[in-house]
Amino acid sequence: MKAPSANGAWASSKPPLLRFLDECHDKFATDEAGAVADYIPELSKANPAHFGISLATLDGHVYEVGDSKIPFTIQSMSKPFVFALALDTLGAARVESAIGVEPSGDPFNSIRLNSDNHPFNPMVNAGAIACSGLIHEAKGDDAFEHIREALGRFAGRTLGVDEAVYASESATGDRNRAIAYLLRTNAVLKDRVDSVLDVYFRQCAILVTARDIAVMAATLANRGLNPVTGQQVMTPYAISRTLSVMTSSGMYDYAGEWIYRVGIPAKSGVGGGILAALPARLGLGSYSPRLDSHGNSVRGIRVCEALSSHYDLHMLNRSDDARTSIIADYSIGQNPSRRSRRPHERDILATHHEQVRVIELVGTLSFSNVDYVSRQLASKPRPQFVIFDLHRVTSLTRAGARLVAEEFRELAAHNVTVIIAGVKRGSREWNIIREWTGSLKNVRDFYLLDTAIEWAEDQLVYRHGGSIDFHETTELSEQPLLAGLSKEELADLGEIGTIRYYKSGEKIIAAGSPATSIFFLRSGAVHVTLPDGVRLATLTAGMAFGEMALIEPMRSADVFADISASALEVSLENFERLRKQHPHASGRIMRNLAQLLADRLIVANNRIDVLTAH
Amino acid sequence: MKAPSANGAWASSKPPLLRFLDECHDKFATDEAGAVADYIPELSKANPAHFGISLATLDGHVYEVGDSKIPFTIQSMSKPFVFALALDTLGAARVESAIGVEPSGDPFNSIRLNSDNHPFNPMVNAGAIACSGLIHEAKGDDAFEHIREALGRFAGRTLGVDEAVYASESATGDRNRAIAYLLRTNAVLKDRVDSVLDVYFRQCAILVTARDIAVMAATLANRGLNPVTGQQVMTPYAISRTLSVMTSSGMYDYAGEWIYRVGIPAKSGVGGGILAALPARLGLGSYSPRLDSHGNSVRGIRVCEALSSHYDLHMLNRSDDARTSIIADYSIGQNPSRRSRRPHERDILATHHEQVRVIELVGTLSFSNVDYVSRQLASKPRPQFVIFDLHRVTSLTRAGARLVAEEFRELAAHNVTVIIAGVKRGSREWNIIREWTGSLKNVRDFYLLDTAIEWAEDQLVYRHGGSIDFHETTELSEQPLLAGLSKEELADLGEIGTIRYYKSGEKIIAAGSPATSIFFLRSGAVHVTLPDGVRLATLTAGMAFGEMALIEPMRSADVFADISASALEVSLENFERLRKQHPHASGRIMRNLAQLLADRLIVANNRIDVLTAH
Repeated sequence: MKAPSANGAWASSKPPLLRFLDECHDKFATDEAGAVADYIPELSKANPAHFGISLATLDGHVYEVGDSKIPFTIQSMSKPFVFALALDTLGAARVESAIGVEPSGDPFNSIRLNSDNHPFNPMVNAGAIACSGLIHEAKGDDAFEHIREALGRFAGRTLGVDEAVYASESATGDRNRAIAYLLRTNAVLKDRVDSVLDVYFRQCAILVTARDIAVMAATLANRGLNPVTGQQVMTPYAISRTLSVMTSSGMYDYAGEWIYRVGIPAKSGVGGGILAALPARLGLGSYSPRLDSHGNSVRGIRVCEALSSHYDLHMLNRSDDARTSIIADYSIGQNPSRRSRRPHERDILATHHEQVRVIELVGTLSFSNVDYVSRQLASKPRPQFVIFDLHRVTSLTRAGARLVAEEFRELAAHNVTVIIAGVKRGSREWNIIREWTGSLKNVRDFYLLDTAIEWAEDQLVYRHGGSIDFHETTELSEQPLLAGLSKEELADLGEIGTIRYYKSGEKIIAAGSPATSIFFLRSGAVHVTLPDGVRLATLTAGMAFGEMALIEPMRSADVFADISASALEVSLENFERLRKQHPHASGRIMRNLAQLLADRLIVANNRIDVLTAH
Repeated sequence: MKAPSANGAWASSKPPLLRFLDECHDKFATDEAGAVADYIPELSKANPAHFGISLATLDGHVYEVGDSKIPFTIQSMSKPFVFALALDTLGAARVESAIGVEPSGDPFNSIRLNSDNHPFNPMVNAGAIACSGLIHEAKGDDAFEHIREALGRFAGRTLGVDEAVYASESATGDRNRAIAYLLRTNAVLKDRVDSVLDVYFRQCAILVTARDIAVMAATLANRGLNPVTGQQVMTPYAISRTLSVMTSSGMYDYAGEWIYRVGIPAKSGVGGGILAALPARLGLGSYSPRLDSHGNSVRGIRVCEALSSHYDLHMLNRSDDARTSIIADYSIGQNPSRRSRRPHERDILATHHEQVRVIELVGTLSFSNVDYVSRQLASKPRPQFVIFDLHRVTSLTRAGARLVAEEFRELAAHNVTVIIAGVKRGSREWNIIREWTGSLKNVRDFYLLDTAIEWAEDQLVYRHGGSIDFHETTELSEQPLLAGLSKEELADLGEIGTIRYYKSGEKIIAAGSPATSIFFLRSGAVHVTLPDGVRLATLTAGMAFGEMALIEPMRSADVFADISASALEVSLENFERLRKQHPHASGRIMRNLAQLLADRLIVANNRIDVLTAH
């Protein structure tokens, strides 16, 4: 792959990570150290020049360089996936009682068992054969298909088998037969040795590409959720325990050195593949069949080392920041709902606005983030309502969900009402939150933050002796747009208008149509909505709408009746006549319009301040 | 600690994490299994009932429960810190050639060395004594003070020594003497055995509390930056490698099981302490002197297990989301600068606004985040300018910084100008960015995003044949606020005003003063600024300011002359006279004001849309 031309305006830049992988490929391709595996004839047929690298990110992008689409056999890289499958198929208790998790300090094909006469761990051949045996116990003749399907889910496609390699390994696998019989004499294997080894040899002969390995590794790094297909392939428990044994035993007697120098859980196969999975970051797959004396791909090891050192990606060298998650924290005084309030409601809300606290969160709700939020809540007097806006929350860890639930319970115990905004009912996040908080009576949810704020405002008004009534008014003097007009001017205006009636849900104004009149609401309620669905305002009797007709030729928003409503409609034509008759009134109305717009600008600027505060 | 009363309005909620630690303390305090260490007489004097837990978060908050302030000796928990100190004092090459990093599979006091006749790793006594020896080589008689000071930086306070425990260990430490002589005969120790062991015994007798251990662990979890004091105590390299050996060898022959079940790098001491450091998350310290048969604190192990399982905190079970980091991505068409532009500038900017792309980022700039940003950039036609707003970026990992630098280089190669906003010159982030990008000619920086956008707009205007001149105008007809007025009306307005002259930097309007006049700028430039320093607008000749006097009685913002300037000031008193004389003109001006406010409202709402988009 070459960089696109620098001249064309459309020529896009190349992501630096792709450029880095290109450079690794160019540099390490010249390294001809090591030799292709020859312990079985079929493996020795691999082309030693082949070299492919692929890196999959956890948002599902896959970088590929070189021979990333050449198939080769998975070999020992199958071990972690079959261990994870065994955990999920037979349960952790059964698997963990059969196979240990301590490093053995021995090479991969050691026949030594631990002091319980069980395999040391699932990464040595003895442990891997025991895993295949467990799957065979559970699935019988379907064991291999069960494994092949599971590995296919990790890769995101159906994987084939190299029959020649399978036949060759089966014909020459006496050391593995010795290990299997030793396991059977110690009751670790319960089924026939031949049947179990048939599964094991077939699983080692599954065909993958560097790209497949990258996606499979990324699925390990992503808690079992394949980032390309979006499928949850295994439980997070099985995945984290698999990464644990890869970390402590994946590189056999080189494990301590590997953690120390590279710090990325990894597994290699004698077919020439190396898989590396950095949790919450990336999956790497490489293919180059020349192996070093430990049986690891020479170029693959160099790619892992370069990636770790160039980007300082050691798994124990991570940084985060708890404060990332709160993007805004305010009382509703700083960001009221878009509902126009009558004077007595405004008074109550002005006095008690500190009783509704809004916390807007962003990103991942993790242990650290939620703990930080809970301390922010504990640091100020407790309000009666807390609204958590989760619109921009992209995921929720189990630790985060647990702390959220515990925080809600804490607030419930103090009679604080919790309102969740921004979570769609039935979504994954909603289900998790409901799973943890289902029995709590103090939790409400609204999808729109504005609706949540409006609901909390209504509750505040009720609690402090107010009422939310849809009163009627025929008094034009109550209209802020007409403030300061004389009785005569108001009377003349009343005469040139027409009273209209609307049913609940009826569209009164359509965005994009000519703006030819102004409406003064007399009863009911309407809402003003942008064509993209964003609600700008809710209005009740005594308020005007369509007033921008005074300065704009076209309607920019839709207006719908919320409930049955009535309004006085004054056409611009008639308004023009009034203007000539009462020039002072006309100037006054324009002044009032400017005042309304100035008030809205203050609200908008407050909102910007809230959103851009550090 | 009891939960505060539920009644008082000021009674705050208790963070759930503190409640969890309380519950752990109550529950495990009843566990009386295990026995206080008695291999030296002084240790056996510890009170078996003592039980303290402390947890430090990476934003510097420290939770404490129970006997978290009781001092006890650090013992083997000193090993990781002295290893880190050796790496930073003598350099990695020297330390890594003297001490291995493979697990030994032996107990802590094993006398066996590896095949090179070096200690297996720094967590067994042999390796720890070798570390003390290295410090002694470098510092001689000051070795112990060097260690004590370093551990004090981790704890954030000066640490004392238990002289009785020191004397007792020194008198009974024959096995450690045997190990030390073995190291000396293999040339791992170069100095006198007695001198080195004196350092080692003293370091083991350093006094700490559970709180100290939590802060020390949090410093390990925070890449060597003490989250309470803010001091960078060690290099991230030394810290990550220390966590590596804690992971592979910290729990001796129980290491595999510990990673598998708990998954948090940890170290215990026979004094009764346990230290656990979860990278990028937390540090835990516990103190309870009853030990199990492995020499680990029984209650401390239970706290670690409970914390890991309750919150699912296994280090290999992490989740993140790359998309967290981009909070807004737009062209300046959607969010122009607050500089008022003349018509020919507006035309150029309207045609070419896609040439300036603004990317606002939030949180940690990590490997995944920056890679995602670079792919977003590569996915669209390349603009001439890219502005990165880093105001809300809280930290920058080394991987993130490297990818940022590589991205800048990529953009430079395509003649794209990169503009950084939101990074204070001389700050840590600024230094890191400059370290990586110092030689690049295409990088500019401005602290304010608005200034960065304004600069890019200016460049666009120049590139497309425009000019930014501070022209003069005496033509009131150019004033948008006066659009539509007749020549006669304009002439009368001109006559009732007074021409004023201002020096560069002069304050023209003060926020909070009565609003008694309107200004029409004739030459120069002024800026409008809120009392908190937020710049609202920059205006040039042909624009009005102070026009809100038409509807607001008080000034809400300051106005300063940017360069020397002149303006026509019209008092409201005179304006009122004009209004009576020309009622149509008055209505027209109010309509123009409403139009200006409506335009500003559109800009503000665009900004809100940009900031709240998913």
